[in-house]
Amino acid sequence: MKVAVLGSTGYTGMVLLRILANHPQVAVVMPASSSRAGAALRDVDPGLGAALHAKCDGELVDLETVRAAKPDVVFSALPHLTSSKVCEPFFGKSVVIDLSADFRVPDAALFTRAYGEPPPRVDLQLDSCYGLAEWYGKEILEADIIANPGCYPTATLLPLLPLARKGLIQGKIVVNAFSGISGAGRKEQINLLFHERSENVNAYNPGTKHRHWSEIHYHLSRSGKQLPMLFTPHLVPIKQGIAVTTSCSLRDGVSEEGIAAAFKEAYGTRPFVRLLGSTIPETRWVRNSNRCDIGWHVEDQELLLFSAIDNLVKGASGQAVQNMNLRFGFDETEGLRTYGEF
Amino acid sequence: MKVAVLGSTGYTGMVLLRILANHPQVAVVMPASSSRAGAALRDVDPGLGAALHAKCDGELVDLETVRAAKPDVVFSALPHLTSSKVCEPFFGKSVVIDLSADFRVPDAALFTRAYGEPPPRVDLQLDSCYGLAEWYGKEILEADIIANPGCYPTATLLPLLPLARKGLIQGKIVVNAFSGISGAGRKEQINLLFHERSENVNAYNPGTKHRHWSEIHYHLSRSGKQLPMLFTPHLVPIKQGIAVTTSCSLRDGVSEEGIAAAFKEAYGTRPFVRLLGSTIPETRWVRNSNRCDIGWHVEDQELLLFSAIDNLVKGASGQAVQNMNLRFGFDETEGLRTYGEF
Amino acid sequence: MKVAVLGSTGYTGMVLLRILANHPQVAVVMPASSSRAGAALRDVDPGLGAALHAKCDGELVDLETVRAAKPDVVFSALPHLTSSKVCEPFFGKSVVIDLSADFRVPDAALFTRAYGEPPPRVDLQLDSCYGLAEWYGKEILEADIIANPGCYPTATLLPLLPLARKGLIQGKIVVNAFSGISGAGRKEQINLLFHERSENVNAYNPGTKHRHWSEIHYHLSRSGKQLPMLFTPHLVPIKQGIAVTTSCSLRDGVSEEGIAAAFKEAYGTRPFVRLLGSTIPETRWVRNSNRCDIGWHVEDQELLLFSAIDNLVKGASGQAVQNMNLRFGFDETEGLRTYGEF
Amino acid sequence: MKVAVLGSTGYTGMVLLRILANHPQVAVVMPASSSRAGAALRDVDPGLGAALHAKCDGELVDLETVRAAKPDVVFSALPHLTSSKVCEPFFGKSVVIDLSADFRVPDAALFTRAYGEPPPRVDLQLDSCYGLAEWYGKEILEADIIANPGCYPTATLLPLLPLARKGLIQGKIVVNAFSGISGAGRKEQINLLFHERSENVNAYNPGTKHRHWSEIHYHLSRSGKQLPMLFTPHLVPIKQGIAVTTSCSLRDGVSEEGIAAAFKEAYGTRPFVRLLGSTIPETRWVRNSNRCDIGWHVEDQELLLFSAIDNLVKGASGQAVQNMNLRFGFDETEGLRTYGEF
Repeated sequence: MKVAVLGSTGYTGMVLLRILANHPQVAVVMPASSSRAGAALRDVDPGLGAALHAKCDGELVDLETVRAAKPDVVFSALPHLTSSKVCEPFFGKSVVIDLSADFRVPDAALFTRAYGEPPPRVDLQLDSCYGLAEWYGKEILEADIIANPGCYPTATLLPLLPLARKGLIQGKIVVNAFSGISGAGRKEQINLLFHERSENVNAYNPGTKHRHWSEIHYHLSRSGKQLPMLFTPHLVPIKQGIAVTTSCSLRDGVSEEGIAAAFKEAYGTRPFVRLLGSTIPETRWVRNSNRCDIGWHVEDQELLLFSAIDNLVKGASGQAVQNMNLRFGFDETEGLRTYGEF
Repeated sequence: MKVAVLGSTGYTGMVLLRILANHPQVAVVMPASSSRAGAALRDVDPGLGAALHAKCDGELVDLETVRAAKPDVVFSALPHLTSSKVCEPFFGKSVVIDLSADFRVPDAALFTRAYGEPPPRVDLQLDSCYGLAEWYGKEILEADIIANPGCYPTATLLPLLPLARKGLIQGKIVVNAFSGISGAGRKEQINLLFHERSENVNAYNPGTKHRHWSEIHYHLSRSGKQLPMLFTPHLVPIKQGIAVTTSCSLRDGVSEEGIAAAFKEAYGTRPFVRLLGSTIPETRWVRNSNRCDIGWHVEDQELLLFSAIDNLVKGASGQAVQNMNLRFGFDETEGLRTYGEF
Repeated sequence: MKVAVLGSTGYTGMVLLRILANHPQVAVVMPASSSRAGAALRDVDPGLGAALHAKCDGELVDLETVRAAKPDVVFSALPHLTSSKVCEPFFGKSVVIDLSADFRVPDAALFTRAYGEPPPRVDLQLDSCYGLAEWYGKEILEADIIANPGCYPTATLLPLLPLARKGLIQGKIVVNAFSGISGAGRKEQINLLFHERSENVNAYNPGTKHRHWSEIHYHLSRSGKQLPMLFTPHLVPIKQGIAVTTSCSLRDGVSEEGIAAAFKEAYGTRPFVRLLGSTIPETRWVRNSNRCDIGWHVEDQELLLFSAIDNLVKGASGQAVQNMNLRFGFDETEGLRTYGEF
Repeated sequence: MKVAVLGSTGYTGMVLLRILANHPQVAVVMPASSSRAGAALRDVDPGLGAALHAKCDGELVDLETVRAAKPDVVFSALPHLTSSKVCEPFFGKSVVIDLSADFRVPDAALFTRAYGEPPPRVDLQLDSCYGLAEWYGKEILEADIIANPGCYPTATLLPLLPLARKGLIQGKIVVNAFSGISGAGRKEQINLLFHERSENVNAYNPGTKHRHWSEIHYHLSRSGKQLPMLFTPHLVPIKQGIAVTTSCSLRDGVSEEGIAAAFKEAYGTRPFVRLLGSTIPETRWVRNSNRCDIGWHVEDQELLLFSAIDNLVKGASGQAVQNMNLRFGFDETEGLRTYGEF
């Protein structure tokens, strides 16, 4: 397998390179960057060391070079709206795993609400599928474009989908999510400086104002009855990790056992979801892992859901590789860690 | 004024000593500790330096010494159930400002639910009042025992009370709170070590399981109609600070203007509450300050409330001194900071 | 007293505003900024709150406004080489306390080595003095321009000067310094992002390469015999604080008692230096304080010195106010904290 | 291969389990603990997840069980002086890789100075060797007991040994080392709490007072001429990582090229040492990696050395597995990461 990474100098690109360097099915990795093409990888990402030596030349390459090499897979870690433009030469030729939002929300109104303009390539929508690996395995197997889910949507949808699809919950869904700072990207912004984020916590873009609200809402609605949902993200001073606390009500007659059974049915055999029952997950338990940990708490007819992922792994680059594994029929866990930190 | 601090070696005690050292109305401070009596303050709390020199002997004293000195005010930073026992000699003689939970929840069932046994001194309940300074100023003026509120209840009740008292909200109240690690106290516990808390976020004691649920529920219910409330605290890796995100619904006919007006009426002239409108507060803005910052977001008939305090200042020791100021007729801001960090 | 702060939107400016807001001798504060003039202070520095309300209009002002107001003191928190240019209108009219490097190193070669061009205003050098408050009190009393020392030089010189001036040490001086990230300023740089600095430690500009080497070397040399000195700074993931560990040798015949006596003679009565003997200071003990803590360790004829300051307080804005206090004959501690955190 | 880990509930034990779970040559892992035998691994180390499932029963076992199983390798992550006692049943039967200090310093006086009593098993000293993998490969191949080096000694000796052995340096060696908090172990101590360590930096046990001074001094002296050495460790608020800055002088006639050549000769082909020349390493570059990064700076005849490792990987568990790999003739990098974080 020959794979390329577009946008190698951002955080998701850096994680992709680390995973691909150690992926047994990947023989050639092409780290690409429009702004830094020609630069030595060791200068751009000094921590990577010699890990990729056997699989690449040690230099960032430009788009033309990638194009000429005809890679089997192109991972795009580029910004939304830019991504589908830059990937144009690869559509129909390579499998494109797009970590941007460009193919995640086919609904034009919802996409526009979030990104200010319509989804860029509706013409390709039929060739694409949403890469929430635990739910769209069959579609992934046949897709030429895989829309890798956002970090918040992954952590929010995984606990909600088994319950929403079976109609076990009702009423307003109140989602509070807490993200590490890498989720904001590698940008030269005052409000992302160590001094501004350390010893600091705050909510932002509450209710329906965050772009990921559209993505969560769209994929939740596909599961059946449309439930009102408020999504409030918060920044917390950790490098990597997302925790989500979700509140909703059980439908009449639904018991704690029903909840547990639905989770078991959905995820009981899946390598990257761990069901914790009444134990509440901590983000360090999934740090550097492609796992999503899920716990829950039932009180009368109220339900609280707790989920935790590493935003850069299961919430981005790890799931992208999981999608590649599924797409090409490799073992789903190939190259990915199932264990976290301590 | 002669004041004593019981429990000087915990975090709230340490903050109390710093505030009292610089309080213009306080001439003598007696830092007491049962476990470390006789120890030099400079060994127990090296950061304090010479700040208290003019007001104390530089040594931790025992209870007997405090008793003999007949202080005007006794601040108790002792654990719940212990506090009211140790304060016994001072009831009726000094004004007792109790930072423990012992007098916060007069309802026996609610107190027992939280602390495992009935409130210890119901006989003194009439002499006590709840020291949420912005709401009980008149009662504080006459109380001999002031039950200083918990950190989570302070940050949760301040945004909710103006709305609940006026009946502007309805439905289930979903509270998600995020606390710095000092909120767990200065205890030799593995789960409070730097390595376990750094780069880690998690919920704990969700729904109605945290002790502060009883305190919030009790004082919210006193405001009128009883609303169902879920309270889920989270630990975030900061030293000091609490942020609270609260979700509920507006009563029919209530508008964003009505919310703003209720806040203005309640807090417009109060020095320690800042109303931010649609700006969402960050915990660093109130760090080391006795201020509570409040913001809100209305969307259709849904309301999101955002509040931030320093858990050790407005959430504990600062509010305790604010209560002393109110009780003795000093300027409410005496010795207290109204500005935070950056 | 009417005072102005040039460069109010950087970290040192923000600390200055906090100290001046509470300084009893300061009636009017003019927060100035060339880039943000006209902006509301509450937007630029939301943590400040209403603290300055009684002393300013709540808006950042431009240079012209400051000029017209004829302030008694101008604090310049501007970058080096810019500062002396922008302060031009105030020389000879206001006391200028310059937190930049422009007047710190009169030696042309040393200054040029550090800043790439000669010291900008040698013509004013005679009107200026180095504002290391514990050593130049007499000069400060008469200076119209006070060159406020750098953060590293303050923390390095305070433990070394009493020994170097008395000739108690010999041989190579090896200085290792560790600074919080605010020391690098409030700049939109990738390498200052939370993700890059958190969980990270590294040295930079070692030996004689850091600009502050020139400043330390110059003022150490003025104390007598010129000793070779290596200065290696490190970035550590804290917001504020500098710790310095210095190694050198004792002159023959000098004992631990001699060292202790020299420290006592230099600082025994000074409010902002605390001598800890064999106790090693921690940066949290001086956090938010204008204090420098000093400890030492003697082993055979080897000496290790340990010092700690808050880089933004004693290392910048606090010392600037201390200098104002000294210059105008106020109590040296007016408006400044002598205690740190815990 | 069947391997056991004694002391599975400490930080080094937790890292060992993660590495061994993924080591291709290890079929059975026995996680042992005297205090928690019988407990489920998922409760003791929730982050580990199912990673070890195929290689162990998911429970901590007791010593008797380990003994009966006759493991090929016993990793002991027990405290010094305890370790050699508990390992008694395995000496001569399994290869013992001892992460404690018990076999690191054969010199009785130096060991006693550090640990308060003589080295416990001098009778076994001949069967043991010091497991600094880059220097004692031949001895490791034949040893039955491998004394895995301390974290500080690993990071300090790797840059110094190539120069000391060739006699390229002279004069006093001044070592300043900076360690993440996990280096202090997983102990219920107030001074390791998040609140005490976060936003804090300090030196401790300076000069020759830290136990690792003896270890460094002993192994440095074996390299030839005995050079005086001061070693001052510091705690910095990161979870994992050690940076070391070392100052010494070049022997007359030694040039920067000579230094570079010595490094290249020693490490040019070694997978776990990266030579950076004048680039200074950052701890994040080696985080979670078994690599040691080394940089240097020459100025006149002064030399500054910079090294960085992950204290729990190359400084403990990673090097232990590297030693197992060498001892059993596996590829040296098997199961170990050569890349760090970003």
